Amino acid sequence: MNQREQSGGRATPVVAVVLAAGFGTRFDPDDPKQLVSVGGRPIVCWSIEAFERNARVSDIIVVVNPRVRAAVESLVDAAGYPKVRMILNGGAERVDSTEAALAALAAAGVPRDAKILIHDAVRPFVAQSSIDGCIDALDRFAAATVAYASTDTVLLTEDLGDVQVVRSVPERAHTFRAQTPQAFRFATIRHAYDLAAGDPDFHPTDDTRVVVDYLPDEPVAIVAGGESNLKVTTREDMPTAERIAARLLAER
Amino acid sequence: MNQREQSGGRATPVVAVVLAAGFGTRFDPDDPKQLVSVGGRPIVCWSIEAFERNARVSDIIVVVNPRVRAAVESLVDAAGYPKVRMILNGGAERVDSTEAALAALAAAGVPRDAKILIHDAVRPFVAQSSIDGCIDALDRFAAATVAYASTDTVLLTEDLGDVQVVRSVPERAHTFRAQTPQAFRFATIRHAYDLAAGDPDFHPTDDTRVVVDYLPDEPVAIVAGGESNLKVTTREDMPTAERIAARLLAER
Repeated sequence: MNQREQSGGRATPVVAVVLAAGFGTRFDPDDPKQLVSVGGRPIVCWSIEAFERNARVSDIIVVVNPRVRAAVESLVDAAGYPKVRMILNGGAERVDSTEAALAALAAAGVPRDAKILIHDAVRPFVAQSSIDGCIDALDRFAAATVAYASTDTVLLTEDLGDVQVVRSVPERAHTFRAQTPQAFRFATIRHAYDLAAGDPDFHPTDDTRVVVDYLPDEPVAIVAGGESNLKVTTREDMPTAERIAARLLAER
Repeated sequence: MNQREQSGGRATPVVAVVLAAGFGTRFDPDDPKQLVSVGGRPIVCWSIEAFERNARVSDIIVVVNPRVRAAVESLVDAAGYPKVRMILNGGAERVDSTEAALAALAAAGVPRDAKILIHDAVRPFVAQSSIDGCIDALDRFAAATVAYASTDTVLLTEDLGDVQVVRSVPERAHTFRAQTPQAFRFATIRHAYDLAAGDPDFHPTDDTRVVVDYLPDEPVAIVAGGESNLKVTTREDMPTAERIAARLLAER
């Protein structure tokens, strides 16, 4: 019995794609945020370990940029993470990194029904329940995303000359802040990206948006995230990150 | 020369309504959050002082609940805030507190063109630039709200049986998180509330929503807020609040 999801007697790979290719210019240009330590451990290691610890995840690939590649390779070597299959170079934008990962998965012969969980490395504290929620959701839906109910009222705006004005105020119960992982059956995310590739205006900041925009009939399920699934974006986030890390380490 | 806005040779009152009537059940039932100290000062005092310090604000009214009334009264007396004109009892819901304030302003003979800035007391660190931005915006628009550009992708969802699915993903450049103050010409906010009063389904969590829903042709301008205009909601927010308070106190 291996760790893969059993489906019709056949193992369905569950692949985590950890995107660690951001340059994080808002953080510190001389100290890439995915390598910064929190709770005594580099942020990228927290993210990889979240998927190492989940018995249902079969494989991990890590997407890097040339600047952090050597550092990430030596962290992975030192830790000996058994599920990490490849460390890939990503691209200038997030979308390029996802595309690089999808191409590598195709080249590796990953089946169409594989469950792909795309995760931002700078969200080091993703809960096991969110990872499990993604894997479960893909039994009913071809796409799912971890998201966190917005505690603030969200305003949708439009430009009115030099100012923005409110266009609408969606009901708070139906406004979520996207987190990661964002999870897809492999065929679905590839199809969405193939359709998007023909669109010169394609600059998504989010993989879910690619499915919503290019496969509008494909429902994307919401999986419960949480406030501790923090995205480390600026130095200002570090005290909160240290507090969450200390709590998680104490709980283990 | 008094501190009121000059407009056509006549002084336009600028009234800050500080809503301190929340019961804050998510915080600590035995220690109402508007009275908790941050940086050595109760949260409600930070909020009142933000408007005391702005020379363009002419009057302040504070809306309380019976449980905190005596405490707020003695804080106001001790500080001797010169602009605080009244301390009013609010209601069970936020909307009731705003309505109580509007009724009191009408009874006090506040003119139709007065600029009313409605502020949550539990946002103690509102920037002077945001207060000024509201007052300025009301020269061009009848309504404005402080808001902060969302750094997260926002997902709008719909119910699909037992799960929520993504309905749309608005462009990030047009998604804002509402903060306060929310600012209105007096006649405009009264008109919106009068229309809303006839609607049995009226449970807004936000004054801007009342204008957007009941006066849809009235544009509401966005005024730049910021991450430090934090809403203190739970005990988890206190370390961040203390950090912001320490920075602001050091800057003064």
